[in-house]
Amino acid sequence: MISPKTPPSVSYSFVVRLTYPNRIGMFAKLMQIIGHHGGDLGAVDIVNPEATRMTRDITVRARDHEHIEEIVRAIHKVKEVVVANVSDQVFLLHLGGKISIRNKVPLTTRDTLSMAYTPGVARVCSAIAEQHSKVWPLTIKGNSVAVVSDGSAVLGLGNIGPEAAMPVMEGKAMLFKEFAGIDAYPICLRTQDTAEIVSTVANMSVGFGGINLEDISAPRCFEIERQLQERLDIPVFHDDQHGTAVVVLAALLNAGRLAGRPLAALRIVILGAGAAGTAIATMLSLAGAKDIVVCDRKGILNHRTRNDLNEAKKQLAAATNPRGLSGDLGNALRKAHVLIGVSGPGLVAPKDLRLMAAKPIVFALANPTPEIMPEQAAARAWIVATGRSDYPNQINNVLVFPGIFRGALKVRARRINHEMKLAAAHAIAGCIAHRELSPEYIVPSVFNREVAQRVAAAVAEAAIKTGVARTRIDNSQA
Amino acid sequence: MISPKTPPSVSYSFVVRLTYPNRIGMFAKLMQIIGHHGGDLGAVDIVNPEATRMTRDITVRARDHEHIEEIVRAIHKVKEVVVANVSDQVFLLHLGGKISIRNKVPLTTRDTLSMAYTPGVARVCSAIAEQHSKVWPLTIKGNSVAVVSDGSAVLGLGNIGPEAAMPVMEGKAMLFKEFAGIDAYPICLRTQDTAEIVSTVANMSVGFGGINLEDISAPRCFEIERQLQERLDIPVFHDDQHGTAVVVLAALLNAGRLAGRPLAALRIVILGAGAAGTAIATMLSLAGAKDIVVCDRKGILNHRTRNDLNEAKKQLAAATNPRGLSGDLGNALRKAHVLIGVSGPGLVAPKDLRLMAAKPIVFALANPTPEIMPEQAAARAWIVATGRSDYPNQINNVLVFPGIFRGALKVRARRINHEMKLAAAHAIAGCIAHRELSPEYIVPSVFNREVAQRVAAAVAEAAIKTGVARTRIDNSQA
Repeated sequence: MISPKTPPSVSYSFVVRLTYPNRIGMFAKLMQIIGHHGGDLGAVDIVNPEATRMTRDITVRARDHEHIEEIVRAIHKVKEVVVANVSDQVFLLHLGGKISIRNKVPLTTRDTLSMAYTPGVARVCSAIAEQHSKVWPLTIKGNSVAVVSDGSAVLGLGNIGPEAAMPVMEGKAMLFKEFAGIDAYPICLRTQDTAEIVSTVANMSVGFGGINLEDISAPRCFEIERQLQERLDIPVFHDDQHGTAVVVLAALLNAGRLAGRPLAALRIVILGAGAAGTAIATMLSLAGAKDIVVCDRKGILNHRTRNDLNEAKKQLAAATNPRGLSGDLGNALRKAHVLIGVSGPGLVAPKDLRLMAAKPIVFALANPTPEIMPEQAAARAWIVATGRSDYPNQINNVLVFPGIFRGALKVRARRINHEMKLAAAHAIAGCIAHRELSPEYIVPSVFNREVAQRVAAAVAEAAIKTGVARTRIDNSQA
Repeated sequence: MISPKTPPSVSYSFVVRLTYPNRIGMFAKLMQIIGHHGGDLGAVDIVNPEATRMTRDITVRARDHEHIEEIVRAIHKVKEVVVANVSDQVFLLHLGGKISIRNKVPLTTRDTLSMAYTPGVARVCSAIAEQHSKVWPLTIKGNSVAVVSDGSAVLGLGNIGPEAAMPVMEGKAMLFKEFAGIDAYPICLRTQDTAEIVSTVANMSVGFGGINLEDISAPRCFEIERQLQERLDIPVFHDDQHGTAVVVLAALLNAGRLAGRPLAALRIVILGAGAAGTAIATMLSLAGAKDIVVCDRKGILNHRTRNDLNEAKKQLAAATNPRGLSGDLGNALRKAHVLIGVSGPGLVAPKDLRLMAAKPIVFALANPTPEIMPEQAAARAWIVATGRSDYPNQINNVLVFPGIFRGALKVRARRINHEMKLAAAHAIAGCIAHRELSPEYIVPSVFNREVAQRVAAAVAEAAIKTGVARTRIDNSQA
């Protein structure tokens, strides 16, 4: 009944309120039933202890929705037990939204009202009207990012539309706040038309210090980002591309340190030619990688042998694959040092890894189910990284975007350029000292608060060096 | 040197840090100089008391920017006094913005991260993808309003552009939070084109439960609001029109109660035919007023005698002026009971009021300088109301929009219709009991917390009655 592959998790935790006869053995019996059906017991709270009836809230972790129902059905069958309520913890946490607005000063007196709103505010408006750059220090712009999605490529769920994308964008806003103190707001768009997205975001960008594009499908995401970067004088950053690329580079830099090989000496295969795969290829090239081969589900991207490639893939094929390989993934993997999967679940088999050079480095980043499970890869791979938190080496964008935007906002950067992204990757990699490095520890923990700070400092410095900073370090927001 | 008309105010308060010889008489001398130049002394804080030198922070209210400079110059001239710093309180309050994002749960553990973001969030996304209406309870949408402006008609400052409008929109967001617990976000637009504004706002509206349009100039504001109301299934409310109209109606209902005359028996003159004037005329008509005459700066709106009227003014002229008056403001005011000014400073003279019927009711709402100052109106007028906080009867939109949107969000209303606005006006008027009413107390205080609650309840009820509510009362947000 219990699958070893999907253990009970907090993502499927629920609280069940039970009322039952208050006598010896009843509670143990209930616990036994939950355990027997594979439920993972958490907190047990007494709600109402009476002489004859006991009411308790029991927190249980399940594997999935069906598992929750199975456990609740089993409890229902126990005589004399009343299931008063079943509440799903994930949905409870989302009820009413996950973020809110906080006023920095309360408007409870006439004085603060007159300073924060009319008539006092008019002076601040006039000052900005005279000199537009004052909008940075005198409004939320200097600390704010719009998290924008059209809902076309949300997590592993695909094109589920803008309403259904909202919880992810709100979650992203939370991450910005938690890890970098940035005030981000979720904006989901009722259009998936490239030109409309560009004009909408451009029009609404005035009050933001940066735009984080999120979960927009390829190849539209490339064009949308490019056009917005041209039109706007604030950073526009498609996190699915660049956030992923930066953290992958950071992890690969550390894997290379462990292997004693520089990036230029690694044969790298990227499986997945969407937004992430394309950005990773570009990022690794900029960082010095010389031999990158990209595959999609039909095989190796080769602009000579493949006539089914769209414009984005054609360009990618031309910029990679220096040995002119063609054919299937196996052909690409022969003697390769590194496999980076950003495709789909189970697309890599253990036998594929046997084709690789000694000590293969495997990043299987499809989420939630990787291209190959770490247990399966272990027999052959030397280093395995995934996007999951329940295995070592979690490759997670949250190591990147909070610090990158913090650094950009610090100096009011006009854009986030390659140098800033490279600086971010090196800063992340540098959070692990050489003596700490191991095949199971090539990326820092997402809860390492030092990461965002180091990334921000490195990014701000790179922005200043490359001339995209408006100011030097602005400490008023630090 | 001190003008009786513009007293020192908190809008021009500053803190000056002074270091001076620590001996008897120095402090008194400094206070004397500040007082002599008309500065209003506030808090005096000791920063650094040494045996020979004293450093203090002195808070001073001035009349305007020149007045601040005058006072500081005068202090500078005092021998042995060092002005270490002058900080402007209004600008200090704005530094770094006035609002921020707050996470409802901290993301400091793996468990909350897994529930608020991946992988747990995917379940919430899927639930919304299956049933779009779940976006209301499961995201911030159910409690959020976008405060949208193109910066074309900001306060009394005019077309100062979207950057300079930001502080007002941020202040508005604060008012939403403070008075109704609503999470509002300021969005300023880089376009003043009607079609572009409509498509931008429509595209970005997915995650909001309502749109508050603000400080958009007439006549574009009418068309923008109309088109957005047609396209969207959430309330779109141009506050400069309807917020003003609702509070004016509330005040006039109470003035009528005092005068013992129903709305239908009042001759009403509105000076100002922009967004506010038009909305007030419409609102008062809907509430039962029969005799409304609207004037702009060129005189009475009469669709027969005026050939210089734009489409909006033509329609307004046709819908009002039942006695077919023409000519100047004076012609309109003859025997009128009520004058409502929503135009510009000083446009009404005391002699104009002498033309009115006995016991004139005068709402002089131009901000910050009314059409006629209350002191000048007092000789003739019975009831005077202004937009200012330093006179009785402040007509302030903040009595309206927080409660109206709170009520609309409570029932997930599709729009804010006339019935909801009328209900809001009656609820505001009803916050003052008949026995409390007086010519100096026809509108409740902006700090009366009961107002937003009563407005919200009345508006939600009206929404349900008129069929624009999606749900009955949603207590999860209350």
